[in-house]
Amino acid sequence: MKALEDKILAEGEVLTGNVLKVGSFLNQQVDTDFMTLIAKEGARLYKDAGITKVLTLEASGIAVAFAVAQQLHVPMVYAKKYGSSNITNDVYKASVYSYTHKQTFDIVVSKKYLQPDDVILLVDDFLALGNALNGLIHIVEQSGANLAGALIAIEKGFQSGGDLLREEGVRVESLAIIDSMEDGKIVFRELENT
Amino acid sequence: MKALEDKILAEGEVLTGNVLKVGSFLNQQVDTDFMTLIAKEGARLYKDAGITKVLTLEASGIAVAFAVAQQLHVPMVYAKKYGSSNITNDVYKASVYSYTHKQTFDIVVSKKYLQPDDVILLVDDFLALGNALNGLIHIVEQSGANLAGALIAIEKGFQSGGDLLREEGVRVESLAIIDSMEDGKIVFRELENT
Repeated sequence: MKALEDKILAEGEVLTGNVLKVGSFLNQQVDTDFMTLIAKEGARLYKDAGITKVLTLEASGIAVAFAVAQQLHVPMVYAKKYGSSNITNDVYKASVYSYTHKQTFDIVVSKKYLQPDDVILLVDDFLALGNALNGLIHIVEQSGANLAGALIAIEKGFQSGGDLLREEGVRVESLAIIDSMEDGKIVFRELENT
Repeated sequence: MKALEDKILAEGEVLTGNVLKVGSFLNQQVDTDFMTLIAKEGARLYKDAGITKVLTLEASGIAVAFAVAQQLHVPMVYAKKYGSSNITNDVYKASVYSYTHKQTFDIVVSKKYLQPDDVILLVDDFLALGNALNGLIHIVEQSGANLAGALIAIEKGFQSGGDLLREEGVRVESLAIIDSMEDGKIVFRELENT
Protein backbone atom coordinates (compact mmCIF):
# COMPACT_ATOMS: atom_id res chain seq x y z
CA MET A 1 0.00 0.00 0.00
CA LYS A 2 1.82 3.02 -1.35
CA ALA A 3 0.28 5.48 1.12
CA LEU A 4 1.49 3.38 4.07
CA GLU A 5 5.00 3.06 2.64
CA ASP A 6 5.11 6.82 2.17
CA LYS A 7 3.91 7.38 5.73
CA ILE A 8 6.55 4.99 7.11
CA LEU A 9 9.26 6.82 5.19
CA ALA A 10 8.00 10.22 6.33
CA GLU A 11 7.30 9.46 10.01
CA GLY A 12 8.94 6.16 10.95
CA GLU A 13 12.11 6.08 13.01
CA VAL A 14 14.60 3.24 12.73
CA LEU A 15 16.24 2.53 16.09
CA THR A 16 19.01 0.10 16.95
CA GLY A 17 18.02 -3.56 17.25
CA ASN A 18 15.81 -3.52 14.14
CA VAL A 19 13.16 -1.51 15.95
CA LEU A 20 10.88 0.60 13.77
CA LYS A 21 8.92 3.23 15.66
CA VAL A 22 5.70 4.33 14.02
CA GLY A 23 4.15 5.65 17.21
CA SER A 24 3.19 8.94 15.57
CA PHE A 25 0.43 7.37 13.44
CA LEU A 26 -0.01 3.60 13.99
CA ASN A 27 0.16 3.08 17.76
CA GLN A 28 0.57 5.26 20.86
CA GLN A 29 -0.74 8.05 18.66
CA VAL A 30 -3.13 6.86 15.98
CA ASP A 31 -3.88 8.98 12.92
CA THR A 32 -7.56 8.02 12.72
CA ASP A 33 -8.20 9.21 9.15
CA PHE A 34 -5.13 7.33 7.94
CA MET A 35 -6.06 4.25 9.95
CA THR A 36 -9.49 4.28 8.28
CA LEU A 37 -7.72 4.28 4.92
CA ILE A 38 -5.57 1.30 5.98
CA ALA A 39 -8.67 -0.49 7.20
CA LYS A 40 -10.51 0.05 3.91
CA GLU A 41 -7.62 -1.55 2.04
CA GLY A 42 -7.53 -4.45 4.49
CA ALA A 43 -11.28 -4.97 4.21
CA ARG A 44 -10.99 -4.90 0.41
CA LEU A 45 -8.44 -7.73 0.47
CA TYR A 46 -10.71 -9.93 2.61
CA LYS A 47 -14.10 -8.81 1.36
CA ASP A 48 -14.95 -12.18 -0.22
CA ALA A 49 -13.61 -14.32 2.63
CA GLY A 50 -16.85 -14.41 4.61
CA ILE A 51 -15.23 -12.98 7.75
CA THR A 52 -17.50 -13.08 10.82
CA LYS A 53 -15.01 -11.81 13.39
CA VAL A 54 -11.69 -9.98 13.67
CA LEU A 55 -9.25 -11.15 16.35
CA THR A 56 -6.22 -9.28 17.67
CA LEU A 57 -4.03 -8.99 20.77
CA GLU A 58 -4.02 -6.11 23.24
CA ALA A 59 -2.90 -3.34 23.20
CA SER A 60 -1.30 -2.05 20.00
CA GLY A 61 -3.39 -4.26 17.70
CA ILE A 62 -6.73 -2.94 18.94
CA ALA A 63 -7.00 0.27 16.92
CA VAL A 64 -6.18 -1.31 13.55
CA ALA A 65 -8.28 -4.40 14.30
CA PHE A 66 -11.23 -2.24 15.30
CA ALA A 67 -10.92 -0.15 12.15
CA VAL A 68 -10.81 -3.22 9.89
CA ALA A 69 -13.73 -4.91 11.70
CA GLN A 70 -15.70 -1.67 11.40
CA GLN A 71 -15.25 -1.72 7.61
CA LEU A 72 -16.34 -5.36 7.47
CA HIS A 73 -19.25 -4.71 9.88
CA VAL A 74 -18.23 -7.58 12.14
CA PRO A 75 -17.23 -7.68 15.83
CA MET A 76 -13.62 -7.20 16.92
CA VAL A 77 -12.32 -9.44 19.71
CA TYR A 78 -9.01 -8.95 21.44
CA ALA A 79 -6.95 -11.47 23.34
CA LYS A 80 -5.87 -10.26 26.75
CA LYS A 81 -2.57 -10.78 28.38
CA TYR A 82 -3.24 -13.22 31.16
CA GLY A 83 -4.33 -11.83 34.49
CA SER A 84 -5.08 -8.44 33.04
CA SER A 85 -8.75 -8.16 33.90
CA ASN A 86 -12.07 -9.71 34.92
CA ILE A 87 -11.62 -12.95 33.05
CA THR A 88 -13.24 -16.19 34.09
CA ASN A 89 -11.51 -19.52 33.71
CA ASP A 90 -13.51 -20.34 30.64
CA VAL A 91 -10.88 -19.20 28.17
CA TYR A 92 -8.74 -20.34 25.28
CA LYS A 93 -5.10 -19.77 26.10
CA ALA A 94 -1.79 -19.66 24.26
CA SER A 95 1.79 -18.76 25.16
CA VAL A 96 3.53 -15.94 23.34
CA TYR A 97 7.15 -14.94 23.55
CA SER A 98 7.54 -11.18 23.43
CA TYR A 99 10.64 -10.02 21.63
CA THR A 100 10.04 -6.51 23.01
CA HIS A 101 9.77 -7.62 26.63
CA LYS A 102 12.08 -10.64 26.39
CA GLN A 103 9.60 -12.84 28.21
CA THR A 104 6.84 -15.37 27.62
CA PHE A 105 3.29 -14.50 28.59
CA ASP A 106 -0.09 -16.14 28.18
CA ILE A 107 -2.83 -14.64 26.06
CA VAL A 108 -6.46 -15.55 26.63
CA VAL A 109 -9.81 -15.17 24.87
CA SER A 110 -13.11 -15.95 26.54
CA LYS A 111 -14.62 -19.08 24.94
CA LYS A 112 -17.94 -17.36 24.37
CA TYR A 113 -16.46 -14.94 21.83
CA LEU A 114 -15.17 -17.56 19.38
CA GLN A 115 -17.55 -20.14 17.91
CA PRO A 116 -16.92 -23.12 15.59
CA ASP A 117 -18.95 -21.45 12.83
CA ASP A 118 -16.89 -18.23 12.97
CA VAL A 119 -14.58 -17.25 10.13
CA ILE A 120 -11.71 -15.37 11.73
CA LEU A 121 -9.46 -12.66 10.36
CA LEU A 122 -6.40 -11.99 12.50
CA VAL A 123 -5.26 -8.36 12.46
CA ASP A 124 -2.16 -6.81 13.97
CA ASP A 125 -0.09 -3.69 13.55
CA PHE A 126 3.24 -5.54 13.23
CA LEU A 127 4.51 -8.95 12.17
CA ALA A 128 8.14 -9.87 12.80
CA LEU A 129 8.94 -13.34 14.16
CA GLY A 130 5.24 -14.19 14.18
CA ASN A 131 5.00 -15.09 17.87
CA ALA A 132 1.83 -13.12 18.52
CA LEU A 133 0.21 -14.38 15.31
CA ASN A 134 1.08 -17.99 16.10
CA GLY A 135 -0.46 -17.57 19.55
CA LEU A 136 -3.66 -16.22 18.02
CA ILE A 137 -3.72 -19.06 15.47
CA HIS A 138 -3.38 -21.56 18.32
CA ILE A 139 -6.39 -19.95 20.01
CA VAL A 140 -8.47 -20.08 16.81
CA GLU A 141 -7.58 -23.78 16.44
CA GLN A 142 -8.78 -24.51 19.98
CA SER A 143 -12.10 -22.81 19.25
CA GLY A 144 -12.76 -24.88 16.12
CA ALA A 145 -13.40 -21.70 14.13
CA ASN A 146 -12.12 -21.28 10.57
CA LEU A 147 -9.08 -19.12 9.98
CA ALA A 148 -9.42 -16.97 6.87
CA GLY A 149 -5.99 -15.42 7.25
CA ALA A 150 -4.14 -12.49 8.70
CA LEU A 151 -3.96 -8.83 7.85
CA ILE A 152 -0.87 -6.98 9.00
CA ALA A 153 -0.11 -3.30 8.67
CA ILE A 154 3.68 -3.56 8.68
CA GLU A 155 5.66 -6.78 8.26
CA LYS A 156 9.37 -7.02 8.89
CA GLY A 157 10.13 -9.23 5.92
CA PHE A 158 13.73 -9.73 6.98
CA GLN A 159 12.45 -11.67 9.97
CA SER A 160 10.92 -15.07 9.34
CA GLY A 161 7.39 -14.93 10.78
CA GLY A 162 5.35 -14.00 7.73
CA ASP A 163 7.10 -16.17 5.19
CA LEU A 164 7.05 -19.23 7.48
CA LEU A 165 3.30 -18.87 7.93
CA ARG A 166 2.80 -18.47 4.17
CA GLU A 167 4.82 -21.67 3.60
CA GLU A 168 2.44 -23.40 6.03
CA GLY A 169 -0.45 -22.27 3.85
CA VAL A 170 -1.74 -19.45 6.02
CA ARG A 171 -2.95 -16.44 4.03
CA VAL A 172 -0.94 -13.47 5.31
CA GLU A 173 -1.58 -10.09 3.71
CA SER A 174 0.70 -7.28 4.79
CA LEU A 175 0.09 -3.73 3.62
CA ALA A 176 3.80 -2.92 3.76
CA ILE A 177 6.68 -5.38 3.96
CA ILE A 178 10.09 -4.07 4.94
CA ASP A 179 12.84 -6.28 3.52
CA SER A 180 15.68 -4.33 5.03
CA MET A 181 16.35 -1.36 7.27
CA GLU A 182 20.10 -1.54 7.50
CA ASP A 183 21.78 1.75 8.37
CA GLY A 184 18.36 3.29 8.82
CA LYS A 185 17.47 2.91 5.13
CA ILE A 186 14.07 1.27 4.69
CA VAL A 187 13.65 -1.01 1.66
CA PHE A 188 10.16 -2.30 0.86
CA ARG A 189 9.23 -5.59 -0.82
CA GLU A 190 7.13 -5.26 -3.96
CA LEU A 191 3.63 -6.50 -3.12
CA GLU A 192 1.19 -8.45 -5.28
CA ASN A 193 -1.87 -7.30 -3.36
CA THR A 194 -1.67 -3.66 -4.37
CA MET B 1 -28.16 7.39 25.36
CA LYS B 2 -31.18 5.15 25.13
CA ALA B 3 -29.59 2.65 22.74
CA LEU B 4 -26.68 2.11 25.14
CA GLU B 5 -28.99 1.65 28.13
CA ASP B 6 -30.98 -0.92 26.15
CA LYS B 7 -27.80 -2.74 25.15
CA ILE B 8 -26.58 -2.82 28.77
CA LEU B 9 -29.92 -4.26 29.91
CA ALA B 10 -29.91 -6.82 27.10
CA GLU B 11 -26.28 -7.98 27.27
CA GLY B 12 -24.71 -6.72 30.51
CA GLU B 13 -24.05 -9.08 33.39
CA VAL B 14 -23.99 -7.88 36.98
CA LEU B 15 -21.46 -9.84 39.04
CA THR B 16 -20.71 -9.66 42.75
CA GLY B 17 -18.60 -6.73 43.92
CA ASN B 18 -20.43 -4.18 41.76
CA VAL B 19 -18.82 -5.54 38.61
CA LEU B 20 -20.70 -4.97 35.37
CA LYS B 21 -19.52 -7.10 32.48
CA VAL B 22 -20.21 -5.69 29.04
CA GLY B 23 -17.53 -7.73 27.31
CA SER B 24 -19.93 -8.85 24.60
CA PHE B 25 -20.08 -5.43 22.94
CA LEU B 26 -17.91 -2.77 24.64
CA ASN B 27 -14.60 -4.49 25.38
CA GLN B 28 -13.05 -7.93 24.84
CA GLN B 29 -15.58 -8.26 22.04
CA VAL B 30 -16.49 -4.94 20.45
CA ASP B 31 -19.66 -4.54 18.41
CA THR B 32 -18.14 -2.21 15.82
CA ASP B 33 -21.39 -0.89 14.34
CA PHE B 34 -22.72 -0.13 17.82
CA MET B 35 -19.42 1.43 18.86
CA THR B 36 -19.60 3.72 15.84
CA LEU B 37 -23.06 4.79 17.02
CA ILE B 38 -21.71 5.53 20.52
CA ALA B 39 -18.84 7.47 18.98
CA LYS B 40 -21.17 9.61 16.88
CA GLU B 41 -23.11 10.59 19.99
CA GLY B 42 -19.88 11.36 21.84
CA ALA B 43 -18.57 13.45 18.95
CA ARG B 44 -21.89 15.34 18.82
CA LEU B 45 -21.57 16.33 22.49
CA TYR B 46 -18.05 17.73 21.97
CA LYS B 47 -18.36 18.98 18.39
CA ASP B 48 -17.99 22.66 19.37
CA ALA B 49 -15.19 22.15 21.89
CA GLY B 50 -12.33 22.50 19.40
CA ILE B 51 -10.88 19.07 20.26
CA THR B 52 -7.48 18.43 18.67
CA LYS B 53 -6.72 15.07 20.30
CA VAL B 54 -8.42 12.21 22.12
CA LEU B 55 -6.55 10.61 25.04
CA THR B 56 -7.29 7.27 26.70
CA LEU B 57 -5.58 4.48 28.64
CA GLU B 58 -4.71 1.01 27.32
CA ALA B 59 -6.29 -1.42 26.76
CA SER B 60 -10.07 -1.32 27.15
CA GLY B 61 -10.34 2.40 26.36
CA ILE B 62 -8.67 2.15 22.96
CA ALA B 63 -11.60 0.99 20.83
CA VAL B 64 -14.06 3.62 22.08
CA ALA B 65 -11.41 6.36 22.04
CA PHE B 66 -10.40 5.47 18.48
CA ALA B 67 -14.03 5.50 17.35
CA VAL B 68 -14.69 8.92 18.90
CA ALA B 69 -11.46 10.40 17.52
CA GLN B 70 -12.34 8.99 14.11
CA GLN B 71 -15.66 10.87 14.17
CA LEU B 72 -13.88 14.08 15.21
CA HIS B 73 -11.10 13.51 12.62
CA VAL B 74 -8.38 13.99 15.23
CA PRO B 75 -5.60 11.67 16.44
CA MET B 76 -6.15 9.22 19.29
CA VAL B 77 -3.35 8.82 21.84
CA TYR B 78 -3.28 6.16 24.51
CA ALA B 79 -1.38 6.14 27.76
CA LYS B 80 0.60 2.97 28.30
CA LYS B 81 1.01 1.10 31.51
CA TYR B 82 4.60 1.66 32.48
CA GLY B 83 7.22 -0.67 31.12
CA SER B 84 4.85 -2.10 28.56
CA SER B 85 6.75 -1.25 25.41
CA ASN B 86 9.40 0.71 23.52
CA ILE B 87 9.03 3.94 25.48
CA THR B 88 11.80 6.40 25.94
CA ASN B 89 12.27 8.33 29.17
CA ASP B 90 10.76 11.42 27.66
CA VAL B 91 7.28 10.83 29.06
CA TYR B 92 4.56 12.34 31.20
CA LYS B 93 3.72 9.97 34.02
CA ALA B 94 0.96 9.50 36.58
CA SER B 95 0.09 6.88 39.18
CA VAL B 96 -3.24 5.07 38.94
CA TYR B 97 -4.75 2.71 41.48
CA SER B 98 -6.56 -0.13 39.75
CA TYR B 99 -9.65 -1.30 41.58
CA THR B 100 -9.73 -4.38 39.33
CA HIS B 101 -6.15 -5.40 40.03
CA LYS B 102 -5.91 -3.99 43.56
CA GLN B 103 -2.60 -2.34 42.82
CA THR B 104 -1.06 0.98 41.80
CA PHE B 105 0.66 1.29 38.45
CA ASP B 106 2.19 4.11 36.46
CA ILE B 107 0.77 5.29 33.16
CA VAL B 108 2.91 7.15 30.65
CA VAL B 109 2.47 9.21 27.49
CA SER B 110 5.35 10.26 25.30
CA LYS B 111 5.84 14.03 25.56
CA LYS B 112 5.83 14.48 21.81
CA TYR B 113 2.16 13.44 21.52
CA LEU B 114 0.75 16.16 23.81
CA GLN B 115 1.43 19.82 23.06
CA PRO B 116 0.49 22.98 24.98
CA ASP B 117 -1.81 24.09 22.15
CA ASP B 118 -3.73 20.81 22.15
CA VAL B 119 -7.35 20.65 23.32
CA ILE B 120 -7.80 17.22 24.85
CA LEU B 121 -10.88 15.04 25.14
CA LEU B 122 -10.44 12.12 27.54
CA VAL B 123 -12.38 9.01 26.54
CA ASP B 124 -12.85 5.76 28.43
CA ASP B 125 -15.23 2.83 28.47
CA PHE B 126 -15.90 3.00 32.22
CA LEU B 127 -15.85 5.54 35.02
CA ALA B 128 -16.21 4.38 38.61
CA LEU B 129 -13.92 5.85 41.27
CA GLY B 130 -12.23 8.01 38.64
CA ASN B 131 -8.70 6.77 39.25
CA ALA B 132 -7.83 6.30 35.59
CA LEU B 133 -9.43 9.61 34.62
CA ASN B 134 -7.58 11.48 37.37
CA GLY B 135 -4.31 9.95 36.17
CA LEU B 136 -5.02 11.10 32.62
CA ILE B 137 -5.95 14.59 33.86
CA HIS B 138 -2.65 14.75 35.74
CA ILE B 139 -0.85 13.90 32.50
CA VAL B 140 -2.73 16.59 30.55
CA GLU B 141 -1.82 19.14 33.25
CA GLN B 142 1.87 18.25 32.95
CA SER B 143 1.73 18.80 29.20
CA GLY B 144 0.19 22.25 29.48
CA ALA B 145 -2.57 21.28 27.06
CA ASN B 146 -6.18 22.34 27.57
CA LEU B 147 -8.65 19.82 28.92
CA ALA B 148 -12.02 20.05 27.20
CA GLY B 149 -13.57 17.30 29.27
CA ALA B 150 -14.22 13.59 29.37
CA LEU B 151 -16.51 11.29 27.48
CA ILE B 152 -17.40 8.02 29.17
CA ALA B 153 -19.48 5.19 27.79
CA ILE B 154 -20.71 3.81 31.12
CA GLU B 155 -20.43 5.57 34.47
CA LYS B 156 -21.10 3.88 37.77
CA GLY B 157 -22.95 6.81 39.33
CA PHE B 158 -23.13 5.09 42.72
CA GLN B 159 -19.37 5.44 42.97
CA SER B 160 -17.95 8.88 43.44
CA GLY B 161 -15.55 9.47 40.55
CA GLY B 162 -17.75 11.27 38.05
CA ASP B 163 -19.61 13.51 40.48
CA LEU B 164 -16.40 14.54 42.28
CA LEU B 165 -14.86 15.60 38.98
CA ARG B 166 -17.99 17.55 38.02
CA GLU B 167 -17.85 19.37 41.38
CA GLU B 168 -14.26 20.31 40.53
CA GLY B 169 -15.53 21.86 37.30
CA VAL B 170 -14.44 19.15 34.88
CA ARG B 171 -16.93 18.51 32.08
CA VAL B 172 -17.79 14.81 32.28
CA GLU B 173 -20.31 13.46 29.78
CA SER B 174 -21.38 9.87 30.28
CA LEU B 175 -23.60 8.14 27.75
CA ALA B 176 -25.13 5.94 30.43
CA ILE B 177 -24.98 6.43 34.19
CA ILE B 178 -25.89 3.53 36.44
CA ASP B 179 -27.14 4.79 39.80
CA SER B 180 -27.69 1.37 41.28
CA MET B 181 -27.29 -2.27 40.44
CA GLU B 182 -28.33 -3.85 43.71
CA ASP B 183 -29.56 -7.42 43.43
CA GLY B 184 -28.61 -7.37 39.76
CA LYS B 185 -31.24 -4.73 38.91
CA ILE B 186 -29.74 -1.89 36.88
CA VAL B 187 -31.17 1.59 37.50
CA PHE B 188 -30.08 4.42 35.18
CA ARG B 189 -29.80 8.12 36.01
CA GLU B 190 -31.80 10.44 33.80
CA LEU B 191 -29.35 12.35 31.61
CA GLU B 192 -29.46 15.93 30.40
CA ASN B 193 -27.22 15.34 27.40
CA THR B 194 -29.66 13.13 25.51
